[in-house]
Amino acid sequence: MTNVTKGITESSSNSTPPADAKTRVREFMRGLQDEICSKLEELDGKGKFREDSWEREEGGGGRSRVLSQGEVLEQGGVGFSEVWGKQLPPSILKQRPEAEGHGFYATGTSMVLHPRSPYIPTVHLNYRYFEAGPVWWFGGGADLTPYYPFAEDAAHFHKTLKQACDRNHPEYYRVFKPWCDEYFYLKHRQEMRGIGGIFFDYQDGRGELYRGAKPEGIAAKYSKEIGELEPRSWENLFNLAVDCGNAFLPAYVPIVERRRNIEYGDRERNFQLYRRGRYVEFNLVYDRGTIFGLQTNGRTESILMSLPPLVRWEYCYQPEPNTPEAELYETFLKPHDWANWKSE
Amino acid sequence: MTNVTKGITESSSNSTPPADAKTRVREFMRGLQDEICSKLEELDGKGKFREDSWEREEGGGGRSRVLSQGEVLEQGGVGFSEVWGKQLPPSILKQRPEAEGHGFYATGTSMVLHPRSPYIPTVHLNYRYFEAGPVWWFGGGADLTPYYPFAEDAAHFHKTLKQACDRNHPEYYRVFKPWCDEYFYLKHRQEMRGIGGIFFDYQDGRGELYRGAKPEGIAAKYSKEIGELEPRSWENLFNLAVDCGNAFLPAYVPIVERRRNIEYGDRERNFQLYRRGRYVEFNLVYDRGTIFGLQTNGRTESILMSLPPLVRWEYCYQPEPNTPEAELYETFLKPHDWANWKSE
Repeated sequence: MTNVTKGITESSSNSTPPADAKTRVREFMRGLQDEICSKLEELDGKGKFREDSWEREEGGGGRSRVLSQGEVLEQGGVGFSEVWGKQLPPSILKQRPEAEGHGFYATGTSMVLHPRSPYIPTVHLNYRYFEAGPVWWFGGGADLTPYYPFAEDAAHFHKTLKQACDRNHPEYYRVFKPWCDEYFYLKHRQEMRGIGGIFFDYQDGRGELYRGAKPEGIAAKYSKEIGELEPRSWENLFNLAVDCGNAFLPAYVPIVERRRNIEYGDRERNFQLYRRGRYVEFNLVYDRGTIFGLQTNGRTESILMSLPPLVRWEYCYQPEPNTPEAELYETFLKPHDWANWKSE
Repeated sequence: MTNVTKGITESSSNSTPPADAKTRVREFMRGLQDEICSKLEELDGKGKFREDSWEREEGGGGRSRVLSQGEVLEQGGVGFSEVWGKQLPPSILKQRPEAEGHGFYATGTSMVLHPRSPYIPTVHLNYRYFEAGPVWWFGGGADLTPYYPFAEDAAHFHKTLKQACDRNHPEYYRVFKPWCDEYFYLKHRQEMRGIGGIFFDYQDGRGELYRGAKPEGIAAKYSKEIGELEPRSWENLFNLAVDCGNAFLPAYVPIVERRRNIEYGDRERNFQLYRRGRYVEFNLVYDRGTIFGLQTNGRTESILMSLPPLVRWEYCYQPEPNTPEAELYETFLKPHDWANWKSE
């Protein structure tokens, strides 16, 4: 598709978004926040989300919703934002040099849930859409971080997300799953954050799934195998974001229902608090969304509402061999083909 | 002083360190760790330091000492390290381009204490020495982070450090005090980490106190006022590090003794845990030592032993007006001339 109005050549551009692109994505992102919050309140049975609307000086704003001290959720934050400005921050311009000198528009929904029970995994979701001069792209994903893990839960989470990907292209999950394993990786611990899920970024339909992502390690391996995908339309990528966003509740809620009544004691609680430290380390040292937020003078309380309500660090902690804690490290915090897992 | 052996010109180099420079600094740094640990065990009365020696693949190693669950100290970490390698990490080379292509040597002592009582401040110390090709420099400092602060304690801490600086040059404290205020500043919170102390970096005797430090804000103001200092010798800067290092115990121990028996309840404890979150945010997002450690494949457990044993985050917390918690923000977390404070 030629982008005549912006006077750029076909080869350097992705397909033109529809005239109502921003409105459609924004409405989807807002609706996703509403739907998730409403279902989580119902699931929790006690906690209620508190909403704060905020505005950003340079342009745009959002609404942050936090549920604290619920029955199931010790803390849950679900944010929606729609912001614009004169220039993308350097960390993004490096990946999208075509956006240099142009204003940008970004909208998205993000969520982190810290359940009270160590048997219910922490979970993260984020979907986002950018427009900047001649380029636009979708990014996001969802990943699960269990403390006392169940293979059945990991498999259910992955299978549900894979179905959402498959509805849009049979190759998506095969790339987005290892990309997630790679992205949510703590280099200084040489440890995965959890059992993964899906992650993608800079998806602009130009056919290279990894364009601009400079994958390393696990993801690079898959990237080389796959090479290019035929070009995708804006509609296809919007549908991908919609389907993956909508897959979150069916991927997570059944896990909560299965595990919410398991009893636990100080041992399990202490291990959960310790492992939450990894979540803090990841978000403050590596997370792209956190860094983008802090670099663009975002609302600090909204950016950091992903941090857990209570966290423990313990010098040189290592789990005892042959314990459930050791099993987390040995079996679950390794890349694993969960979508093809079968119960024995 | 001309550095003939290394074939570099006088104008581009700082004065030559003595032949036994590394040995002397290393022995001081090791001794400081010993002295601090021994005094802290005596002060605590219950906790004992556990020592782990470690080696670094590329060269060197260290000994990390951690005291956990003491009477006074909930956790304290005191580290000594001496490392070398082929190339300084990019973040340091940017400040010292002369070191490009040369190997480096670094030794230092660092310490963070997290007391149990919210009436005893958290405290940090770090002194370090680098040699890399034609350049060498000293850096470091100490700063105090109270929860329920006392002006008398802040003044005592600053006065003691000022005396150590003054013994070496009358201008040092005047620069190193605001430099500390600026360095231990959380931009995303627009908040100081605590009541400061002293901080300096890249002190190589070439006379510009701020050479390579690119100060902004508070420190830049003082830097402009002071401009250049007459060149300092290696001996002067080593003495500065020694005097400041040795000033730590007299600066901190009397504060512990004055406050250790104050009773406190859940309110004070909760506020302390909340404020410890700022310590985590600073160390993972801004701290030069932490970033250096993670970039040079340092020992993760030793780097992160500065993190508190238990931490709380609370979305949109703000202290009630006219409470001791509000007083911390309003009076203490602002730059203040503590060395000239007088009790009324």
